[in-house]
Amino acid sequence: MKAMVFQGPGQTSWRDVPDPGVVDASDVVVRVEAVTICGTDLHIVKGDVPEVTPGTVLGHEAVGEVVEAGSEVRSVRPGERVLVSCISSCGRCRFCREGRYGQCRGGGGWVLGHLIDGTQAEYVRVPFADGSVHPLPGAVPAEDAVLLADIFPTGYEVGVLNGRVGPGDTVAVVGAGPIGLATVATAGLYSPGRIIAVDYAPSRLEAARALGADTVVDAAEDAEQLVKDVTEGLGADVVVEAVGVPQAFEECMRMVRPGGHVANIGVHGEPVTLHLEDLWIKDITLTTGLVDTRTTPMLLRMLAAGRLPGVSELVTHRFELGQMEQAYDIFTKSRHTGALKVVLGGGRHDELRLTELRPTG
Amino acid sequence: MKAMVFQGPGQTSWRDVPDPGVVDASDVVVRVEAVTICGTDLHIVKGDVPEVTPGTVLGHEAVGEVVEAGSEVRSVRPGERVLVSCISSCGRCRFCREGRYGQCRGGGGWVLGHLIDGTQAEYVRVPFADGSVHPLPGAVPAEDAVLLADIFPTGYEVGVLNGRVGPGDTVAVVGAGPIGLATVATAGLYSPGRIIAVDYAPSRLEAARALGADTVVDAAEDAEQLVKDVTEGLGADVVVEAVGVPQAFEECMRMVRPGGHVANIGVHGEPVTLHLEDLWIKDITLTTGLVDTRTTPMLLRMLAAGRLPGVSELVTHRFELGQMEQAYDIFTKSRHTGALKVVLGGGRHDELRLTELRPTG
Amino acid sequence: MKAMVFQGPGQTSWRDVPDPGVVDASDVVVRVEAVTICGTDLHIVKGDVPEVTPGTVLGHEAVGEVVEAGSEVRSVRPGERVLVSCISSCGRCRFCREGRYGQCRGGGGWVLGHLIDGTQAEYVRVPFADGSVHPLPGAVPAEDAVLLADIFPTGYEVGVLNGRVGPGDTVAVVGAGPIGLATVATAGLYSPGRIIAVDYAPSRLEAARALGADTVVDAAEDAEQLVKDVTEGLGADVVVEAVGVPQAFEECMRMVRPGGHVANIGVHGEPVTLHLEDLWIKDITLTTGLVDTRTTPMLLRMLAAGRLPGVSELVTHRFELGQMEQAYDIFTKSRHTGALKVVLGGGRHDELRLTELRPTG
Amino acid sequence: MKAMVFQGPGQTSWRDVPDPGVVDASDVVVRVEAVTICGTDLHIVKGDVPEVTPGTVLGHEAVGEVVEAGSEVRSVRPGERVLVSCISSCGRCRFCREGRYGQCRGGGGWVLGHLIDGTQAEYVRVPFADGSVHPLPGAVPAEDAVLLADIFPTGYEVGVLNGRVGPGDTVAVVGAGPIGLATVATAGLYSPGRIIAVDYAPSRLEAARALGADTVVDAAEDAEQLVKDVTEGLGADVVVEAVGVPQAFEECMRMVRPGGHVANIGVHGEPVTLHLEDLWIKDITLTTGLVDTRTTPMLLRMLAAGRLPGVSELVTHRFELGQMEQAYDIFTKSRHTGALKVVLGGGRHDELRLTELRPTG
Repeated sequence: MKAMVFQGPGQTSWRDVPDPGVVDASDVVVRVEAVTICGTDLHIVKGDVPEVTPGTVLGHEAVGEVVEAGSEVRSVRPGERVLVSCISSCGRCRFCREGRYGQCRGGGGWVLGHLIDGTQAEYVRVPFADGSVHPLPGAVPAEDAVLLADIFPTGYEVGVLNGRVGPGDTVAVVGAGPIGLATVATAGLYSPGRIIAVDYAPSRLEAARALGADTVVDAAEDAEQLVKDVTEGLGADVVVEAVGVPQAFEECMRMVRPGGHVANIGVHGEPVTLHLEDLWIKDITLTTGLVDTRTTPMLLRMLAAGRLPGVSELVTHRFELGQMEQAYDIFTKSRHTGALKVVLGGGRHDELRLTELRPTG
Repeated sequence: MKAMVFQGPGQTSWRDVPDPGVVDASDVVVRVEAVTICGTDLHIVKGDVPEVTPGTVLGHEAVGEVVEAGSEVRSVRPGERVLVSCISSCGRCRFCREGRYGQCRGGGGWVLGHLIDGTQAEYVRVPFADGSVHPLPGAVPAEDAVLLADIFPTGYEVGVLNGRVGPGDTVAVVGAGPIGLATVATAGLYSPGRIIAVDYAPSRLEAARALGADTVVDAAEDAEQLVKDVTEGLGADVVVEAVGVPQAFEECMRMVRPGGHVANIGVHGEPVTLHLEDLWIKDITLTTGLVDTRTTPMLLRMLAAGRLPGVSELVTHRFELGQMEQAYDIFTKSRHTGALKVVLGGGRHDELRLTELRPTG
Repeated sequence: MKAMVFQGPGQTSWRDVPDPGVVDASDVVVRVEAVTICGTDLHIVKGDVPEVTPGTVLGHEAVGEVVEAGSEVRSVRPGERVLVSCISSCGRCRFCREGRYGQCRGGGGWVLGHLIDGTQAEYVRVPFADGSVHPLPGAVPAEDAVLLADIFPTGYEVGVLNGRVGPGDTVAVVGAGPIGLATVATAGLYSPGRIIAVDYAPSRLEAARALGADTVVDAAEDAEQLVKDVTEGLGADVVVEAVGVPQAFEECMRMVRPGGHVANIGVHGEPVTLHLEDLWIKDITLTTGLVDTRTTPMLLRMLAAGRLPGVSELVTHRFELGQMEQAYDIFTKSRHTGALKVVLGGGRHDELRLTELRPTG
Repeated sequence: MKAMVFQGPGQTSWRDVPDPGVVDASDVVVRVEAVTICGTDLHIVKGDVPEVTPGTVLGHEAVGEVVEAGSEVRSVRPGERVLVSCISSCGRCRFCREGRYGQCRGGGGWVLGHLIDGTQAEYVRVPFADGSVHPLPGAVPAEDAVLLADIFPTGYEVGVLNGRVGPGDTVAVVGAGPIGLATVATAGLYSPGRIIAVDYAPSRLEAARALGADTVVDAAEDAEQLVKDVTEGLGADVVVEAVGVPQAFEECMRMVRPGGHVANIGVHGEPVTLHLEDLWIKDITLTTGLVDTRTTPMLLRMLAAGRLPGVSELVTHRFELGQMEQAYDIFTKSRHTGALKVVLGGGRHDELRLTELRPTG
């Protein structure tokens, strides 16, 4: 089959590899119908994630059809369409027992496209299938469902739930990339009083507005002051860091009100400064986390019922599976192409392809 | 009357000041029976807390008898013995309505010995008395009760409750000064599986053991490794920072298990480094906070019932009220005197005085 | 002034009584701008609530202007428009300190129009004003705001919050009178997957649909089966009893899924049968409660921001204050008049009055 | 092998049956080392539990050694000593994913000695072994550990956790049989202010005292009044029903304070009357539930650390495994024999046997 193979920093290509098969009795093999690219994949391509060894197939998000299932698998059967979650869950370890699948100690967690071959391929072997794939409610388009493999549960669990967003709250989301936008969209499920989105890119701020942000702020301006102005000087009830750089994190900590929550989603590559000399007295709760995808079944039901806002707005570019290298190109140059999520496969690529490829030229 | 008056950095003395009276209808005036000195008082004396203006009477912890009550006061009457809490609560603002008295926006919060005259005096005016003093269950010794003005609710609320200590947990308390020790003692209310206390001072570690720590570690040794050794490499469920310096905070962040809690109690004077490059993925919850004293009534009931461990073990030195300057001296030199909490008044000073004063010579 | 005075069972009239004034320093006197009638008032009129003594002015919901304030009152001043909450809070007792104002032991709780003179009058004295009235955000119409005196916080706190409604949930609301409808409307703040409303009256089911119910069921049909059909036989995640009769309660207990919540709001006059022989094993949580109105400030902010759905849909009849007796008549005959909430005062009565009065003839 | 076989109401005997073997790949077979008898077993023997078909081996609690393991089993290996939990968990269904193993929809839940052959035998097949057996921390005596198969997690989860016992609370436990006593013992983990135990049997009240009850009350006396007397008339913060009859349940509902919790553990065979005419306004939370055993690993760790109080006090009679019929006899006549928990196997039967058997004569 064909797959997107990491062969070392700067050397990733769509090439022939052997077809995967069931190895453990809890595995399934899925024929990939739709797949997307995550910002983390770009880090891997650059060589920033040393655990990824050359030869690994990338990708941790997919929708597809089960074509083979090991003898232990009980939740799905060959022929079923499933969402392949970015997190695999052994279902047996202490963390899986507590619903913290992202911290699985039994061989799961984030393994696809990281420690084992991933989803950016024609077929993918998924371990611990009962805890790692979700049957799709029938009518859901693959292109929408694939966004529930990672970014929607991440925004929802690590941003909205960890941040304890509630009705009437003022919520500031710093960073309006795909994850930040999924946070904006799912924060709406709790009817906050006001969602404020902060980013440098006008196109992202426009998307934030479409997904439910009430106020959008150019990150070059004084977002902190704006938050104070609309909260009688107190600060936001909930602040979500969805960037992953020290400057953004530190701004978040200045934006939060006494007694408020800061939920970090950003993937950080270096330490940050925490101003405990100001914060020790302020009753702040700061959370970090990898997604567990424990809310994925609920999100899928909401998607099927047409109640998950913003899913379709997030896909800016659509490709055939075989156009993986072009898709990486478009996604890498998102600052210029305006790419949010690119979807490969999914059956909606044809009419858009030529137009969308133009900006990369 | 006599009172301990801050007259500028390095210039604090026990001197004559006018007697306080009821100013607002919600005030009481309390004749001080027992009072203690807090580490924060030492910071004020050195000039580290610029909000404290010269002429302010110090102290935010006391037990005494109400001698005068404003017309609005309903909870206590002249003649009643009360605990004067370190936190005053207006009872009307948003934060008081949520039980976050420490963040009171209506004139309360930490004001005694900070923004208004405090408790280290023969008499003290307490504003918002209904939300700021607690009638003493009859038989409780003043010396014990005065420890519930600040350190016990602080250890319990900001350490144990914010850290979500639960049965079976491994709890590490870094810093075994009075607040850390109150944390050790009140953590026991939730039956953790193991409490580990870390400090440099052997006398404090000994006190920690007496208060319920199962394991004590010299801070010069590798406490982080010890925590790993007893938790199968995972880290502690709950870590409490009770020091207030960057090194201790950073050690705490390394000690906590994935999915665990770090509760900061320490009063920090400078920023710390937060290693988000390691922590972003670890599902950590970090909390900060000033005490609200909302659990003080429960702690008082437990004290009266003989179920609050460790209160009496914390008092190392006892003085008459007029020996305030000597008491500050002993407490300031705690490294040499081994002072944990010094209590003035309380009726138990006589027999100990001479012996105890000796180490300061 | 004029007021609606209970003079014994079946003897209630709009008549002259002395003007109220400030009695305690924590009182305000409010000139009533808009007021409504609650189902509880009808019970009182019939003589079902023996604590209400003859001579008492009825009513526990109002919007008006503060015209006099006692010396202790800090939150509002004469001239301010306020919402008069159905619950008064002393702010000092144990229950008020925990935010359970409905259980106030200090002289508050539900007292207006119950233990002291109420709001169905030209003027009303409100005790414990700082904990009992809420300044109105400027632009809110009195007619909308008055619904936040009781039914909206009741539906939200006792139904939605006690029932722990969450995103994706199936929520069944049994009883679509004013309280049930407020529950439907505020359940929407948590984005449940499906709201099912059950009632006998087609007009109420129609209102339920307008307020956000996805499915409405005639109570004469098999609502229990419908709930099973849409939940794969499991039952609803949350069931809210908003009727107050044994039959409805028992149906609710049959409708809930294992692990689900039943929140009782209904005011019951007789015991019910609880089928513990079925339920003991089912992990059910059943809650009861009087509203605390602790969420009223948030609901007012949401109302002012145009984010509280359904408020205006609930008012079916509008009167001048002096038409109190007619309004009671319309509301008493709600089965025929279709009355949900009747509002007196509020400035929108003129054009509707004649039409609306016709059905009572 | 020998096993205790239910052959119809009143016809249960220790007899030869075929040895069990691994059937599904997730099974283990355990050689039983120690087993106990539960009150539920007595109900089955009488014919009260119609799902139990003739030929079924009874028992749902055991400690033993794994002698065979299916190919899917990852958590334990042949040769390991394990606790066999009363609840089996498929690990895949929605309820197992939420930690509600007792409500398992995938073939687990309470199945041992109920829907499939149980533990009162020389060998037992345990399905879904990864979610149903727990490796024993080495030094724990089988006799102690076997009490963690059912009664300790039941008292703790369904009583203490559902009832939200907290430090300082007044907790009333109605019924001091084995489950009630386990509730008393585990309530102590949260340091309530006072535990009150109610029962008719002096020997059980004595046991309650040994396990941590501060006050014990003969059920023939006015326990309700006693609770009021010690709570300033308010009622208990938490009341646990551990009897399973209407009279006890109704007494519990009268004992609870406004805002308090009633946790039902009792297995009820008939409906109860719920006085909603009094309770609708009282902010009560009532919970029911079957144990999930999700806290069993923590309880086992606490037991191994010597921190689980009361385990050994609960065993009143010890037998060899082959004395199953005598043990049933003693346990059935508990009113006369004073039996609390009888343990078979466990290696401590010899010296006690003769003495203990005498009361049955």
